[in-house]
Amino acid sequence: MDKPQASLPHVVIVGGGFGGLYAAKSLRNAPVKVTLIDKRNFHLFQPLLYQVATGSLSPADIASPLRVILSKQKNTQVLLDKVVDIDSKAKKVIVEDGEDISYDMLVIATGGSHHYFGNDQWENDAPGLKTVEDALEMRRRIFTAFEAAEKEPDPKKRQSLLTFVVVGGGPTGVELAGAIAEIAHKSVVEDFRDVDTTKARILLFEGMDRILPPYPEELSVKARQSLEKLGVEVKTKTLVTDISNKTVTFREGDKADTIPANTILWAAGVKASFMGRVLAESTGAELDRAGRVIVEPDLSIKGYPDIFVVGDLANFPHQGERPLPGVAPVAMQEGEYVAKLITRKCQGKTITPFRYFDLGSMAVVGQNKAVANLGFAQLSGFFAWFIWVMAHIYYLIEFDNKLVVMIQWAWNYMTLGRGARLITGKTAIYANTEVNNQENKLELVNN
Amino acid sequence: MDKPQASLPHVVIVGGGFGGLYAAKSLRNAPVKVTLIDKRNFHLFQPLLYQVATGSLSPADIASPLRVILSKQKNTQVLLDKVVDIDSKAKKVIVEDGEDISYDMLVIATGGSHHYFGNDQWENDAPGLKTVEDALEMRRRIFTAFEAAEKEPDPKKRQSLLTFVVVGGGPTGVELAGAIAEIAHKSVVEDFRDVDTTKARILLFEGMDRILPPYPEELSVKARQSLEKLGVEVKTKTLVTDISNKTVTFREGDKADTIPANTILWAAGVKASFMGRVLAESTGAELDRAGRVIVEPDLSIKGYPDIFVVGDLANFPHQGERPLPGVAPVAMQEGEYVAKLITRKCQGKTITPFRYFDLGSMAVVGQNKAVANLGFAQLSGFFAWFIWVMAHIYYLIEFDNKLVVMIQWAWNYMTLGRGARLITGKTAIYANTEVNNQENKLELVNN
Repeated sequence: MDKPQASLPHVVIVGGGFGGLYAAKSLRNAPVKVTLIDKRNFHLFQPLLYQVATGSLSPADIASPLRVILSKQKNTQVLLDKVVDIDSKAKKVIVEDGEDISYDMLVIATGGSHHYFGNDQWENDAPGLKTVEDALEMRRRIFTAFEAAEKEPDPKKRQSLLTFVVVGGGPTGVELAGAIAEIAHKSVVEDFRDVDTTKARILLFEGMDRILPPYPEELSVKARQSLEKLGVEVKTKTLVTDISNKTVTFREGDKADTIPANTILWAAGVKASFMGRVLAESTGAELDRAGRVIVEPDLSIKGYPDIFVVGDLANFPHQGERPLPGVAPVAMQEGEYVAKLITRKCQGKTITPFRYFDLGSMAVVGQNKAVANLGFAQLSGFFAWFIWVMAHIYYLIEFDNKLVVMIQWAWNYMTLGRGARLITGKTAIYANTEVNNQENKLELVNN
Repeated sequence: MDKPQASLPHVVIVGGGFGGLYAAKSLRNAPVKVTLIDKRNFHLFQPLLYQVATGSLSPADIASPLRVILSKQKNTQVLLDKVVDIDSKAKKVIVEDGEDISYDMLVIATGGSHHYFGNDQWENDAPGLKTVEDALEMRRRIFTAFEAAEKEPDPKKRQSLLTFVVVGGGPTGVELAGAIAEIAHKSVVEDFRDVDTTKARILLFEGMDRILPPYPEELSVKARQSLEKLGVEVKTKTLVTDISNKTVTFREGDKADTIPANTILWAAGVKASFMGRVLAESTGAELDRAGRVIVEPDLSIKGYPDIFVVGDLANFPHQGERPLPGVAPVAMQEGEYVAKLITRKCQGKTITPFRYFDLGSMAVVGQNKAVANLGFAQLSGFFAWFIWVMAHIYYLIEFDNKLVVMIQWAWNYMTLGRGARLITGKTAIYANTEVNNQENKLELVNN
């Protein structure tokens, strides 16, 4: 699609997550025309997705339409479409539903998805958490398990329904396990008549010798203690070897074991989106084992100074021992850096290589505790949680006025409530613990 | 499932809508054991469902888990299950996933669904609005239409994408048409670059000679004027004769016509749920043409003084010229009446026949206008809207503390915002205007 202001350089950004959105926002005063393409119509505040999965927030609380965020930014157009290929010779992106889009500069920020390390067949039994739909599916499974337990007369089956296994001891796994423990042991206890939800077992599996492995050891210990206090069984040095028939097979140190568990959630691995392969084919870009694109010091692709990769899809190996982690602050800073580079380039200037400024990392453990590694200080407990709340509200409010989230949090905090624990989705009209085939829709009368 | 307190009479209620929930709540102090069975885990505040469909509210804002509402009511158990049959001889209900449930008294409150008057093939092109999933599907279609229009170079196709037809001029149709007109002509205008959303056409079709036919004529006129001011084209005496290939064929008076419209919404008819047929087979109950059960003056089924039908599934012909309408106040009062009857029965007492006390009816027209028929007075405009807001907040808060809804409304009111306009659902990961087959989930990486 050619625009009237065709004389301005055209920057095409693919992906409206933290990397792409912050790149677009930082180009608001640049002498360029920006097109942001995403296959979803909203930006998702992924760090809070676990709260949607565990029934504390609604999807709209943590998502904002990209059009609304960029409504006032007149040099920017948002397109809902899926990029399926890149022609780096003709400088075009090819989309699924629409005309090819020419670019002068291209920013790829398409992120990643779950990684089952060659065991994709586990996905049905152990879904991961990346999209709104993933979160609603996790929510459906968690709350349906209690519903089924209420009706189950067989004690063994009942215990399996009350067993929750979270695979992966990073921030997402820690946050999920903590929240599920609070649901089972606090929020829903009074709501059931036949089942004692305090009998629920919540297990957190981590392959390394401690949870939150990139954090200082002190914080890993604190996080483990907090989780155990909530009733989570933390198993470290534990590797999952099979998931099938609602049973997890694992090796804990040298010992092999199995546990029947109706609800298994995957928080163990991330791989790059398919755009990595597209880029590799089109530009010869080098990919790492997780499919991420190894970028130059200025985040461009070797030999393609007009194509940039930011966020979870980028492997930036020029700082520290490992590539930068796939977290929101890295993506935001990378997006802003590329915008600055493009602005300078339009002025005929250059820029020093990208450097990540580490503001620290945080993970929530239960309703009002967290661990925070701020570099200069390690915090845990309520104070760390308070810093976490403030930081998240700051970023949430920056792109939309999410006052309601604050009020909802305050309300949930006071009441331990989980008002958003609706079991929804076409497969859950009548929510069996198995995914049913959709019935004839005309029969789906509320009952 | 036999309960320990087997000496108390067992009241089984099927359906947790307004009828079933209010019956259950009104039995809280009765000397009975209550089991409420629903295939959803939440009560849905259906009068606000159009606000979910039009992106003002999230599902969780207007739904509350039945367990939470009834948590403190110790004589009541909630079961998530689908009733598939009734054995009125053995006094049992048969559920899809669990053991048969014996009852002493049975209350059926399973409501209704859309009715296409023999044209069920229209449903795919013109979905109705009964469930949370229906509302999210409508939302997806409405907002995806604008997205597709932004990319459409052909002016004719673009106009079809910007044409919205609402079939049925009752309260739901009026509320949907008004909200869509506000979205197109106000909320989203600034958000698009290539498409002029003020060119959108919103048509409301009604078969009778005026919209809101059961209301006093004065209010129908006011409602029509308000809608037209918002930019809705109201067509009365207009019957739909075909819906296919995104085109509506209709007869307006004597004149036949067609209109290409990408988004067609059905608000024209309601039929009873399949439990009507189940009851008819099991008890010989008489059904009306819409499948509703014709009940006795005390809401029981002829010959079965222990089986009651309340809400949209009941045809109560003993008051006024027609049976009572399928609206929330009727269902609530019927549920409360049956609870009172059961309580009296336990005390060996009787009760006079049911009488509906009409508190009036209201419909919203746009952001801050409504029409209200209070019997003794007819109101329209802002004051009617204010009464509408107060009445709905009162009932919303009665069963859950939906403070957040009030704040969300205030926020939307001030900003004309539609923060909940997320396009979601597995078929909408990349939201084409057609429903795509689900892709390989592993490919569904955020882009």
